Amino acid sequence: MPHPLKDWDKIIIGIDPGTNLMGYGILGIKGKKPAMIAMGVIRLSKFESHYTRLGRIFERVQGLVENYLPDEMAIEAPFYGKNVQSMLKLGRAQGVAMAAAISRDIPICEYEPRKIKMAITGNGAASKEQVRMMLTKILNITEENLIPELDSTDALAVALCHFYESTSPAMSSGGSGSWKDFIARNPDRVK
Amino acid sequence: MPHPLKDWDKIIIGIDPGTNLMGYGILGIKGKKPAMIAMGVIRLSKFESHYTRLGRIFERVQGLVENYLPDEMAIEAPFYGKNVQSMLKLGRAQGVAMAAAISRDIPICEYEPRKIKMAITGNGAASKEQVRMMLTKILNITEENLIPELDSTDALAVALCHFYESTSPAMSSGGSGSWKDFIARNPDRVK
Repeated sequence: MPHPLKDWDKIIIGIDPGTNLMGYGILGIKGKKPAMIAMGVIRLSKFESHYTRLGRIFERVQGLVENYLPDEMAIEAPFYGKNVQSMLKLGRAQGVAMAAAISRDIPICEYEPRKIKMAITGNGAASKEQVRMMLTKILNITEENLIPELDSTDALAVALCHFYESTSPAMSSGGSGSWKDFIARNPDRVK
Repeated sequence: MPHPLKDWDKIIIGIDPGTNLMGYGILGIKGKKPAMIAMGVIRLSKFESHYTRLGRIFERVQGLVENYLPDEMAIEAPFYGKNVQSMLKLGRAQGVAMAAAISRDIPICEYEPRKIKMAITGNGAASKEQVRMMLTKILNITEENLIPELDSTDALAVALCHFYESTSPAMSSGGSGSWKDFIARNPDRVK
Protein backbone atom coordinates (compact mmCIF):
# COMPACT_ATOMS: atom_id res chain seq x y z
CA MET A 1 0.00 0.00 0.00
CA PRO A 2 1.52 3.34 -1.02
CA HIS A 3 0.08 5.26 1.96
CA PRO A 4 0.18 3.48 5.33
CA LEU A 5 -3.23 4.04 6.98
CA LYS A 6 -1.75 5.52 10.15
CA ASP A 7 -0.43 8.49 8.15
CA TRP A 8 -3.93 9.85 7.56
CA ASP A 9 -5.74 12.21 9.90
CA LYS A 10 -9.07 10.88 8.74
CA ILE A 11 -10.31 8.21 6.36
CA ILE A 12 -13.72 8.43 4.66
CA ILE A 13 -15.37 5.53 2.83
CA GLY A 14 -17.73 6.61 0.06
CA ILE A 15 -20.41 4.22 -1.15
CA ASP A 16 -22.54 4.46 -4.31
CA PRO A 17 -25.08 1.70 -3.67
CA GLY A 18 -26.77 -0.24 -6.41
CA THR A 19 -28.21 -3.70 -6.79
CA ASN A 20 -26.14 -4.53 -9.90
CA LEU A 21 -22.94 -2.67 -9.19
CA MET A 22 -21.87 -0.97 -5.96
CA GLY A 23 -19.10 1.58 -6.15
CA TYR A 24 -16.71 2.36 -3.30
CA GLY A 25 -14.02 4.93 -2.77
CA ILE A 26 -11.58 5.37 0.10
CA LEU A 27 -10.47 8.93 0.71
CA GLY A 28 -7.64 9.84 3.06
CA ILE A 29 -7.34 13.29 4.62
CA LYS A 30 -3.96 14.64 5.67
CA GLY A 31 -4.22 18.09 7.18
CA LYS A 32 -6.69 19.75 4.83
CA LYS A 33 -5.64 17.73 1.78
CA PRO A 34 -7.76 14.86 0.50
CA ALA A 35 -6.23 12.02 -1.52
CA MET A 36 -7.48 8.78 -3.03
CA ILE A 37 -6.43 5.65 -1.15
CA ALA A 38 -8.50 3.17 -3.17
CA MET A 39 -11.59 2.83 -5.30
CA GLY A 40 -13.43 0.09 -7.10
CA VAL A 41 -16.73 -1.67 -7.62
CA ILE A 42 -18.48 -4.67 -6.13
CA ARG A 43 -20.00 -6.64 -8.99
CA LEU A 44 -23.40 -8.07 -8.10
CA SER A 45 -25.06 -8.88 -11.42
CA LYS A 46 -23.46 -12.34 -11.53
CA PHE A 47 -25.48 -13.35 -8.45
CA GLU A 48 -29.01 -14.27 -9.34
CA SER A 49 -30.47 -14.30 -5.84
CA HIS A 50 -31.40 -11.01 -4.26
CA TYR A 51 -30.23 -12.31 -0.86
CA THR A 52 -26.87 -13.44 -2.22
CA ARG A 53 -26.41 -9.92 -3.57
CA LEU A 54 -27.30 -8.36 -0.22
CA GLY A 55 -24.98 -10.82 1.53
CA ARG A 56 -22.18 -9.95 -0.87
CA ILE A 57 -22.65 -6.22 -0.24
CA PHE A 58 -22.52 -6.76 3.51
CA GLU A 59 -19.40 -8.95 3.38
CA ARG A 60 -17.52 -6.71 0.97
CA VAL A 61 -18.36 -3.45 2.74
CA GLN A 62 -17.45 -5.07 6.06
CA GLY A 63 -14.18 -6.20 4.45
CA LEU A 64 -13.46 -2.65 3.24
CA VAL A 65 -14.22 -1.30 6.71
CA GLU A 66 -11.82 -3.82 8.27
CA ASN A 67 -9.09 -3.16 5.70
CA TYR A 68 -9.19 0.62 5.59
CA LEU A 69 -10.55 1.44 9.07
CA PRO A 70 -12.58 4.47 7.89
CA ASP A 71 -13.65 7.04 10.46
CA GLU A 72 -16.81 7.98 8.57
CA MET A 73 -19.07 6.63 5.84
CA ALA A 74 -20.65 8.82 3.16
CA ILE A 75 -23.35 7.27 1.03
CA GLU A 76 -25.01 8.45 -2.17
CA ALA A 77 -28.73 8.36 -1.52
CA PRO A 78 -31.23 9.26 -4.22
CA PHE A 79 -34.46 10.40 -2.61
CA TYR A 80 -36.58 9.59 -5.62
CA GLY A 81 -36.68 6.54 -7.85
CA LYS A 82 -38.55 5.10 -10.77
CA ASN A 83 -41.03 3.22 -8.62
CA VAL A 84 -41.68 1.80 -5.16
CA GLN A 85 -40.25 -1.59 -6.18
CA SER A 86 -36.88 -0.19 -7.20
CA MET A 87 -36.78 2.02 -4.09
CA LEU A 88 -37.39 -0.98 -1.83
CA LYS A 89 -34.51 -2.85 -3.48
CA LEU A 90 -32.27 0.20 -3.28
CA GLY A 91 -33.24 0.72 0.36
CA ARG A 92 -32.23 -2.84 1.15
CA ALA A 93 -28.87 -2.44 -0.61
CA GLN A 94 -28.29 0.80 1.31
CA GLY A 95 -29.43 -0.88 4.54
CA VAL A 96 -26.94 -3.75 4.40
CA ALA A 97 -24.09 -1.39 3.43
CA MET A 98 -25.06 0.86 6.34
CA ALA A 99 -25.28 -2.14 8.70
CA ALA A 100 -21.65 -2.96 7.89
CA ALA A 101 -20.70 0.54 9.07
CA ILE A 102 -23.10 0.59 12.02
CA SER A 103 -21.75 -2.73 13.30
CA ARG A 104 -18.36 -0.98 13.64
CA ASP A 105 -19.84 2.23 15.12
CA ILE A 106 -18.91 4.27 12.07
CA PRO A 107 -21.10 7.36 11.63
CA ILE A 108 -22.93 7.67 8.29
CA CYS A 109 -23.85 10.73 6.27
CA GLU A 110 -25.88 10.63 3.09
CA TYR A 111 -25.90 12.98 0.14
CA GLU A 112 -28.26 13.42 -2.78
CA PRO A 113 -26.69 12.90 -6.23
CA ARG A 114 -27.42 16.50 -7.13
CA LYS A 115 -25.58 17.77 -4.07
CA ILE A 116 -22.55 15.57 -4.78
CA LYS A 117 -22.34 16.76 -8.38
CA MET A 118 -22.65 20.35 -7.21
CA ALA A 119 -19.89 19.93 -4.61
CA ILE A 120 -17.47 18.31 -7.06
CA THR A 121 -18.18 20.07 -10.37
CA GLY A 122 -20.20 23.12 -9.37
CA ASN A 123 -23.08 21.84 -11.51
CA GLY A 124 -25.85 19.81 -9.90
CA ALA A 125 -26.78 18.33 -13.27
CA ALA A 126 -23.22 17.27 -14.24
CA SER A 127 -22.73 13.92 -15.99
CA LYS A 128 -20.88 11.02 -14.36
CA GLU A 129 -18.07 11.65 -16.85
CA GLN A 130 -17.80 15.27 -15.75
CA VAL A 131 -17.70 14.17 -12.10
CA ARG A 132 -14.88 11.73 -12.94
CA MET A 133 -12.95 14.36 -14.88
CA MET A 134 -13.13 16.93 -12.10
CA LEU A 135 -12.36 14.33 -9.43
CA THR A 136 -9.22 13.14 -11.20
CA LYS A 137 -8.05 16.76 -11.38
CA ILE A 138 -8.79 17.58 -7.72
CA LEU A 139 -7.22 14.38 -6.41
CA ASN A 140 -4.45 14.06 -9.02
CA ILE A 141 -5.63 10.61 -10.04
CA THR A 142 -3.65 9.19 -12.95
CA GLU A 143 -5.21 7.28 -15.84
CA GLU A 144 -3.81 3.91 -14.73
CA ASN A 145 -5.60 4.20 -11.38
CA LEU A 146 -9.02 4.51 -13.04
CA ILE A 147 -11.30 1.58 -13.80
CA PRO A 148 -13.94 1.86 -16.55
CA GLU A 149 -16.93 1.73 -14.18
CA LEU A 150 -18.08 5.25 -13.35
CA ASP A 151 -19.62 3.94 -10.10
CA SER A 152 -16.09 3.91 -8.65
CA THR A 153 -15.50 7.64 -9.19
CA ASP A 154 -19.10 8.34 -8.13
CA ALA A 155 -18.35 6.65 -4.80
CA LEU A 156 -15.12 8.56 -4.34
CA ALA A 157 -17.07 11.72 -5.19
CA VAL A 158 -19.51 11.21 -2.31
CA ALA A 159 -16.54 10.76 0.07
CA LEU A 160 -15.00 14.00 -1.21
CA CYS A 161 -18.38 15.76 -1.00
CA HIS A 162 -18.60 14.65 2.63
CA PHE A 163 -15.12 16.00 3.32
CA TYR A 164 -16.09 19.36 1.82
CA GLU A 165 -19.38 19.44 3.74
CA SER A 166 -17.81 18.55 7.07
CA THR A 167 -15.11 21.21 6.78
CA SER A 168 -17.02 24.02 5.09
CA PRO A 169 -20.16 25.23 6.89
CA ALA A 170 -20.70 27.68 4.06
CA MET A 171 -21.43 24.80 1.70
CA SER A 172 -23.79 22.90 3.95
CA SER A 173 -26.84 24.84 2.88
CA GLY A 174 -27.14 22.55 -0.08
CA GLY A 175 -24.90 23.50 -2.92
CA SER A 176 -25.91 27.08 -3.49
CA GLY A 177 -23.23 29.30 -5.02
CA SER A 178 -21.18 28.67 -8.10
CA TRP A 179 -18.03 26.62 -8.50
CA LYS A 180 -16.20 29.91 -9.06
CA ASP A 181 -17.35 31.19 -5.66
CA PHE A 182 -16.39 27.86 -4.15
CA ILE A 183 -12.85 28.06 -5.56
CA ALA A 184 -12.58 31.63 -4.35
CA ARG A 185 -13.58 30.54 -0.85
CA ASN A 186 -11.42 27.40 -0.89
CA PRO A 187 -8.32 28.04 -2.97
CA ASP A 188 -6.39 25.19 -1.32
CA ARG A 189 -8.85 22.60 -2.62
CA VAL A 190 -8.07 23.08 -6.29
CA LYS A 191 -4.68 22.71 -7.90
CA MET B 1 -36.48 -20.45 29.52
CA PRO B 2 -39.34 -22.96 29.48
CA HIS B 3 -38.08 -24.80 26.38
CA PRO B 4 -34.32 -25.35 26.17
CA LEU B 5 -33.28 -24.46 22.61
CA LYS B 6 -31.65 -27.83 21.95
CA ASP B 7 -35.04 -29.55 22.26
CA TRP B 8 -36.28 -28.02 19.00
CA ASP B 9 -35.81 -29.60 15.58
CA LYS B 10 -35.87 -26.19 13.97
CA ILE B 11 -36.15 -22.59 15.12
CA ILE B 12 -37.61 -19.86 12.87
CA ILE B 13 -37.29 -16.15 13.59
CA GLY B 14 -40.13 -14.06 12.15
CA ILE B 15 -39.62 -10.34 11.58
CA ASP B 16 -42.26 -7.68 10.88
CA PRO B 17 -40.06 -4.72 9.96
CA GLY B 18 -41.06 -1.15 10.50
CA THR B 19 -39.27 2.09 11.16
CA ASN B 20 -41.28 2.91 14.31
CA LEU B 21 -41.88 -0.55 15.73
CA MET B 22 -40.33 -3.82 14.63
CA GLY B 23 -42.06 -7.03 15.66
CA TYR B 24 -40.27 -10.31 16.21
CA GLY B 25 -41.43 -13.82 16.93
CA ILE B 26 -39.42 -16.96 17.66
CA LEU B 27 -41.11 -20.18 16.61
CA GLY B 28 -39.81 -23.62 17.63
CA ILE B 29 -40.65 -26.73 15.63
CA LYS B 30 -40.67 -30.14 17.33
CA GLY B 31 -41.55 -32.91 14.88
CA LYS B 32 -44.40 -31.33 12.94
CA LYS B 33 -45.61 -29.18 15.83
CA PRO B 34 -44.89 -25.47 15.99
CA ALA B 35 -44.80 -23.58 19.30
CA MET B 36 -44.04 -20.06 20.41
CA ILE B 37 -40.66 -19.61 22.10
CA ALA B 38 -40.77 -15.82 22.36
CA MET B 39 -42.22 -12.72 20.77
CA GLY B 40 -41.97 -8.98 21.25
CA VAL B 41 -41.30 -5.64 19.66
CA ILE B 42 -38.29 -3.42 19.19
CA ARG B 43 -39.37 0.14 19.92
CA LEU B 44 -37.77 2.65 17.59
CA SER B 45 -39.91 5.77 17.80
CA LYS B 46 -37.95 7.04 20.83
CA PHE B 47 -34.84 7.40 18.64
CA GLU B 48 -34.95 10.55 16.56
CA SER B 49 -32.11 9.73 14.19
CA HIS B 50 -32.83 7.42 11.30
CA TYR B 51 -29.34 5.88 11.67
CA THR B 52 -29.79 5.24 15.38
CA ARG B 53 -32.99 3.39 14.51
CA LEU B 54 -31.22 1.30 11.87
CA GLY B 55 -28.40 0.63 14.30
CA ARG B 56 -30.87 -0.43 16.98
CA ILE B 57 -32.61 -2.83 14.55
CA PHE B 58 -29.27 -4.38 13.59
CA GLU B 59 -28.11 -4.79 17.20
CA ARG B 60 -31.41 -6.17 18.49
CA VAL B 61 -31.94 -8.60 15.60
CA GLN B 62 -28.33 -9.73 15.94
CA GLY B 63 -28.98 -10.20 19.67
CA LEU B 64 -32.09 -12.29 18.96
CA VAL B 65 -30.12 -14.38 16.48
CA GLU B 66 -27.39 -14.97 19.07
CA ASN B 67 -29.88 -15.77 21.84
CA TYR B 68 -32.23 -18.06 19.98
CA LEU B 69 -29.93 -19.45 17.26
CA PRO B 70 -32.65 -19.60 14.59
CA ASP B 71 -32.13 -21.87 11.57
CA GLU B 72 -34.16 -19.64 9.24
CA MET B 73 -35.50 -16.10 9.04
CA ALA B 74 -38.94 -15.23 7.66
CA ILE B 75 -39.66 -11.59 6.99
CA GLU B 76 -42.91 -9.79 6.21
CA ALA B 77 -42.29 -7.82 3.04
CA PRO B 78 -44.97 -5.59 1.56
CA PHE B 79 -44.35 -5.15 -2.15
CA TYR B 80 -46.21 -1.90 -2.38
CA GLY B 81 -46.14 1.18 -0.20
CA LYS B 82 -47.60 4.61 0.05
CA ASN B 83 -44.73 6.27 -1.79
CA VAL B 84 -41.09 5.87 -2.83
CA GLN B 85 -39.89 7.66 0.31
CA SER B 86 -41.58 5.24 2.69
CA MET B 87 -40.43 2.27 0.60
CA LEU B 88 -36.82 3.45 0.77
CA LYS B 89 -37.06 3.70 4.57
CA LEU B 90 -38.75 0.32 4.82
CA GLY B 91 -36.14 -1.18 2.50
CA ARG B 92 -33.38 0.09 4.77
CA ALA B 93 -35.08 -1.33 7.87
CA GLN B 94 -35.49 -4.67 6.09
CA GLY B 95 -31.90 -4.48 4.85
CA VAL B 96 -30.31 -4.09 8.28
CA ALA B 97 -32.54 -6.82 9.77
CA MET B 98 -31.54 -9.09 6.87
CA ALA B 99 -27.86 -8.20 7.34
CA ALA B 100 -28.06 -9.46 10.92
CA ALA B 101 -29.25 -12.84 9.56
CA ILE B 102 -26.88 -12.86 6.58
CA SER B 103 -23.88 -12.19 8.84
CA ARG B 104 -24.70 -15.49 10.59
CA ASP B 105 -25.42 -17.38 7.32
CA ILE B 106 -29.11 -17.73 8.14
CA PRO B 107 -31.29 -18.17 5.03
CA ILE B 108 -34.11 -15.63 4.59
CA CYS B 109 -37.55 -16.04 3.07
CA GLU B 110 -40.01 -13.22 2.61
CA TYR B 111 -43.78 -13.25 2.48
CA GLU B 112 -46.35 -10.70 1.42
CA PRO B 113 -48.80 -9.60 4.14
CA ARG B 114 -51.70 -11.03 2.13
CA LYS B 115 -50.06 -14.44 1.92
CA ILE B 116 -49.33 -14.51 5.66
CA LYS B 117 -52.92 -13.61 6.53
CA MET B 118 -54.16 -16.28 4.13
CA ALA B 119 -51.87 -18.94 5.61
CA ILE B 120 -52.87 -18.16 9.20
CA THR B 121 -56.56 -17.22 8.94
CA GLY B 122 -57.59 -18.44 5.48
CA ASN B 123 -58.46 -14.85 4.57
CA GLY B 124 -55.90 -12.70 2.76
CA ALA B 125 -57.70 -9.56 3.91
CA ALA B 126 -57.91 -10.52 7.60
CA SER B 127 -57.28 -7.85 10.24
CA LYS B 128 -54.27 -7.91 12.56
CA GLU B 129 -56.68 -8.77 15.39
CA GLN B 130 -57.98 -11.79 13.47
CA VAL B 131 -54.39 -12.92 12.79
CA ARG B 132 -53.65 -12.65 16.52
CA MET B 133 -56.80 -14.53 17.49
CA MET B 134 -56.13 -17.41 15.12
CA LEU B 135 -52.45 -17.53 16.06
CA THR B 136 -53.18 -17.79 19.78
CA LYS B 137 -55.53 -20.69 19.02
CA ILE B 138 -53.10 -22.57 16.74
CA LEU B 139 -50.13 -22.11 19.09
CA ASN B 140 -52.06 -22.28 22.39
CA ILE B 141 -50.77 -18.89 23.47
CA THR B 142 -52.28 -17.73 26.75
CA GLU B 143 -53.41 -14.19 27.43
CA GLU B 144 -50.51 -13.43 29.81
CA ASN B 145 -48.00 -14.18 27.05
CA LEU B 146 -49.46 -11.53 24.76
CA ILE B 147 -48.27 -7.94 24.60
CA PRO B 148 -50.58 -5.19 23.32
CA GLU B 149 -48.57 -4.48 20.15
CA LEU B 150 -50.02 -6.44 17.24
CA ASP B 151 -46.63 -6.27 15.50
CA SER B 152 -45.49 -9.06 17.84
CA THR B 153 -48.17 -11.53 16.70
CA ASP B 154 -47.70 -10.34 13.10
CA ALA B 155 -44.03 -11.33 13.33
CA LEU B 156 -44.86 -14.71 14.85
CA ALA B 157 -47.41 -15.14 12.05
CA VAL B 158 -44.76 -14.75 9.35
CA ALA B 159 -42.64 -17.40 11.10
CA LEU B 160 -45.63 -19.76 11.21
CA CYS B 161 -46.48 -18.96 7.57
CA HIS B 162 -42.91 -19.90 6.66
CA PHE B 163 -43.22 -23.16 8.55
CA TYR B 164 -46.44 -23.99 6.68
CA GLU B 165 -44.90 -23.02 3.34
CA SER B 166 -41.72 -25.01 3.86
CA THR B 167 -43.62 -28.16 4.81
CA SER B 168 -46.65 -27.96 2.53
CA PRO B 169 -45.94 -27.72 -1.22
CA ALA B 170 -49.69 -27.53 -1.80
CA MET B 171 -49.78 -24.09 -0.20
CA SER B 172 -46.79 -22.62 -1.99
CA SER B 173 -48.83 -21.48 -4.98
CA GLY B 174 -49.71 -18.38 -3.05
CA GLY B 175 -52.66 -18.85 -0.78
CA SER B 176 -55.31 -20.08 -3.15
CA GLY B 177 -57.96 -22.30 -1.60
CA SER B 178 -60.06 -21.65 1.45
CA TRP B 179 -59.21 -22.09 5.10
CA LYS B 180 -61.69 -24.97 5.13
CA ASP B 181 -59.69 -26.72 2.37
CA PHE B 182 -56.51 -25.98 4.23
CA ILE B 183 -57.82 -27.55 7.45
CA ALA B 184 -59.02 -30.56 5.46
CA ARG B 185 -55.55 -30.95 3.94
CA ASN B 186 -53.72 -30.30 7.23
CA PRO B 187 -55.83 -31.60 10.11
CA ASP B 188 -52.80 -31.80 12.44
CA ARG B 189 -52.23 -28.05 12.24
CA VAL B 190 -55.43 -27.04 13.94
CA LYS B 191 -56.51 -28.08 17.40
